[in-house]
Amino acid sequence: MPSPPPAAFLDAVAAAFPADFLTRDPAELAEYGKDWTKVYAPAPCAVALPRETAEVARIVKLSAEHGVAIVPSGGRTGLAGGAVAAKGELVVSLARMRRMDPVDVLGATVRVQAGAITEAVHQHCAPSGLTWPVDFASKGSSTVGGNIATNAGGVKVIRYGLTRQWVLGLEVVLANGDVLELNGALEKNNTGVDLRQLFIGSEGTLGVVTAATLKLTRLPGKLDVFLFAVPDLAATIRLFREARRAPFTLMAYEFFTAACLARVQRHRKLRSPFAEPSSHYVLVEVENADQDALESWTARLFEGGIITDGVLAQHASQASELWALREGISESLSATGMPHKNDIALPVAALEGFSAELDGVFGRRYPGWEICVFGHIGDGNLHVNVMKPDDMDKAAFLAKAKEADHDMFALVKKHGGSISAEHGIGLLKRDYLSYSRTPEEIAVMRAIKGALDPKGLLNPGKVLPG
Amino acid sequence: MPSPPPAAFLDAVAAAFPADFLTRDPAELAEYGKDWTKVYAPAPCAVALPRETAEVARIVKLSAEHGVAIVPSGGRTGLAGGAVAAKGELVVSLARMRRMDPVDVLGATVRVQAGAITEAVHQHCAPSGLTWPVDFASKGSSTVGGNIATNAGGVKVIRYGLTRQWVLGLEVVLANGDVLELNGALEKNNTGVDLRQLFIGSEGTLGVVTAATLKLTRLPGKLDVFLFAVPDLAATIRLFREARRAPFTLMAYEFFTAACLARVQRHRKLRSPFAEPSSHYVLVEVENADQDALESWTARLFEGGIITDGVLAQHASQASELWALREGISESLSATGMPHKNDIALPVAALEGFSAELDGVFGRRYPGWEICVFGHIGDGNLHVNVMKPDDMDKAAFLAKAKEADHDMFALVKKHGGSISAEHGIGLLKRDYLSYSRTPEEIAVMRAIKGALDPKGLLNPGKVLPG
Repeated sequence: MPSPPPAAFLDAVAAAFPADFLTRDPAELAEYGKDWTKVYAPAPCAVALPRETAEVARIVKLSAEHGVAIVPSGGRTGLAGGAVAAKGELVVSLARMRRMDPVDVLGATVRVQAGAITEAVHQHCAPSGLTWPVDFASKGSSTVGGNIATNAGGVKVIRYGLTRQWVLGLEVVLANGDVLELNGALEKNNTGVDLRQLFIGSEGTLGVVTAATLKLTRLPGKLDVFLFAVPDLAATIRLFREARRAPFTLMAYEFFTAACLARVQRHRKLRSPFAEPSSHYVLVEVENADQDALESWTARLFEGGIITDGVLAQHASQASELWALREGISESLSATGMPHKNDIALPVAALEGFSAELDGVFGRRYPGWEICVFGHIGDGNLHVNVMKPDDMDKAAFLAKAKEADHDMFALVKKHGGSISAEHGIGLLKRDYLSYSRTPEEIAVMRAIKGALDPKGLLNPGKVLPG
Repeated sequence: MPSPPPAAFLDAVAAAFPADFLTRDPAELAEYGKDWTKVYAPAPCAVALPRETAEVARIVKLSAEHGVAIVPSGGRTGLAGGAVAAKGELVVSLARMRRMDPVDVLGATVRVQAGAITEAVHQHCAPSGLTWPVDFASKGSSTVGGNIATNAGGVKVIRYGLTRQWVLGLEVVLANGDVLELNGALEKNNTGVDLRQLFIGSEGTLGVVTAATLKLTRLPGKLDVFLFAVPDLAATIRLFREARRAPFTLMAYEFFTAACLARVQRHRKLRSPFAEPSSHYVLVEVENADQDALESWTARLFEGGIITDGVLAQHASQASELWALREGISESLSATGMPHKNDIALPVAALEGFSAELDGVFGRRYPGWEICVFGHIGDGNLHVNVMKPDDMDKAAFLAKAKEADHDMFALVKKHGGSISAEHGIGLLKRDYLSYSRTPEEIAVMRAIKGALDPKGLLNPGKVLPG
């Protein structure tokens, strides 16, 4: 059971906020205390639901005065426990702060509150011919604030980059309740350290994002979606090299293994577009390609043995079906089994050497187990999912997987990679941080945390090991 | 005369470094102590010229031990005094650190030392079909380290964004001599606060950039360059709106006034491509446009009265000539007179309202003076140059201009703009910082400076007011 917040704090909240501002309803505590990580038991002391930035500032200030720790909370779609409140913290949820201002078409920007849902932003901007190109499978639940706090990546990074690139203005509440309004709607503003960048990707440990002015871009032109069957990982990398040299704009370059496809087919009842199975599949989306150029390009790929089969979506619904094979993977793995997830990145040039050595780790640590790998080759990001063998106990599985992670992360480090490409560190990867950050870096991270949150009340225990 | 460094410090340097590591030659002190700002008298105590990162780390550490302040120094093309050593500091120049590794074609990256010249990087990457798309008039002298320390902008920001977007890995020497090697060659690395971002744009106040892994992109496709004559500022903004909606990729959208063109023609002996003069000119560069689409687009612009004349470059050398009219402005203003420069930015949507009010300020403050405005409308960036009247004393001019800046910056603030779009703050804009940053922001900036450089020895007096 979560411990209750200090009585004096509750009295102060009752005196200063509307009656529906704070909830201690057990169902809501259970709901708001967890994210999609699902390995931590939620135990917040209460959930605050502000409607305006001023309310966020007041509750943060009041919490600081009473020594109450805070977990900022968005759509809670994270996979690293960054939004989990497991130790009696106050959840400050942005769920009621979903307002979106009218789109500034000339400036190509839109101002939204942090609780705005990613997909709602897309729908809000589309009639103006514009989009916020942050796009990933959980866009129906994830929020702008959460995307910013985790510098979200996704399936279009190769074309558009990370969330960081699409945030012009940022409003942040600091640990002391001060409100920073950073950068307005400016593309260029070279007036000393860019404080926005500190908060983007800081997982709520340095401030609470309450609003943002988003940079928009034109909706993409004509899109073509391919699914290719390729013989092995080396071919997926050769195909990537060819795709980047080809005369079109690469929007997405996603790959997955036969094991992933099998799980998606089982869960989603989808058919493979190919008669013959293959060990690897690549989804390629391109913009504004000439049809003749596309055809001669794919003909060359066949001739070179880089692909063994391929299908080009003939209409939008077929394109969606191909995308469903890729975007359904994460959900299908969880629905049909128990995955131990890792989300790693390597320099593109190191992917092949790393993967060969990783097979050795898998062979030693997980002999005969099912491993589902998919990801965004174009930005070096691999999602590695080890599936629990049916006959193995859950606790034993997790213990074995955690141990094996050390071997994989050592390899990641050796090849100059990252132990968390896009999921973040949160609680889940905290104790592995040193595989990706040096002692000198961690010392600077701590110095900054100390400078911005001297009492350590913002999302304590996340990112930095205790 | 610069005061000499402490004798004990000189002894320690002599003992620990090669004989040619440090120079106190007066000509070199004068040269390395200044940048293109030219309003400060250079007075460094000495100039250190390391060849490797380890030497940078050792000299920074030694300086810290002896309390010697440091000015990190690149190509010294800055226009805000960020690289000026006017108070007896030690200049640590990266001029000998120009090494460039072979291009990683698959990963589309290149590792270079911080002293590598911007244009040399372009030349190094071009044979691989790749480029580092940071591009501006001073590319022949500016260095990668300086570009990063100032988050350089330039003429291609509308297409490629700022320098920040094109830095994957960053090697930085901290105030205590520790070396941070940040992010390697990774596109995605979500492992806590992204420390790279702290140093990018910090103007050498938080660390010394010694090397970087640059992100590259494909060389652009077929380019078309237009110069348009437009009747007024409103038309330049209407034209921008049309250009962004048009069926091509906008590479650059630059404007300048008749006064700028006249100065360039006078200095560079260039001809205007137009028979009739106009009050405003716009240079538009587009990529991969269909010729028929371009023609019907420009026809519509004529019909709509948005442009009154236009020329499309028929070959590469004509395109260079059109670009020379724009890129020669800054140099021509200085060669033919004495400009008081400002480099401001506004949200694009605020440009017109701001400019109308600015005319009022000019009328009051500079009655009848020549004012040369040019810039990058697409990212809201205006370069405002007030020319010294021939019959006015230099000191009186500067005093008047400094006073008038307060009026302009108050307007900038009112319209949500920036007092320094791309030049930075350095020494020159330090006392105006509060027009663009709130007291709460400046407090956080100070806290970060204190956390990273507690003795205040890295580029002291720059950016933050004393």
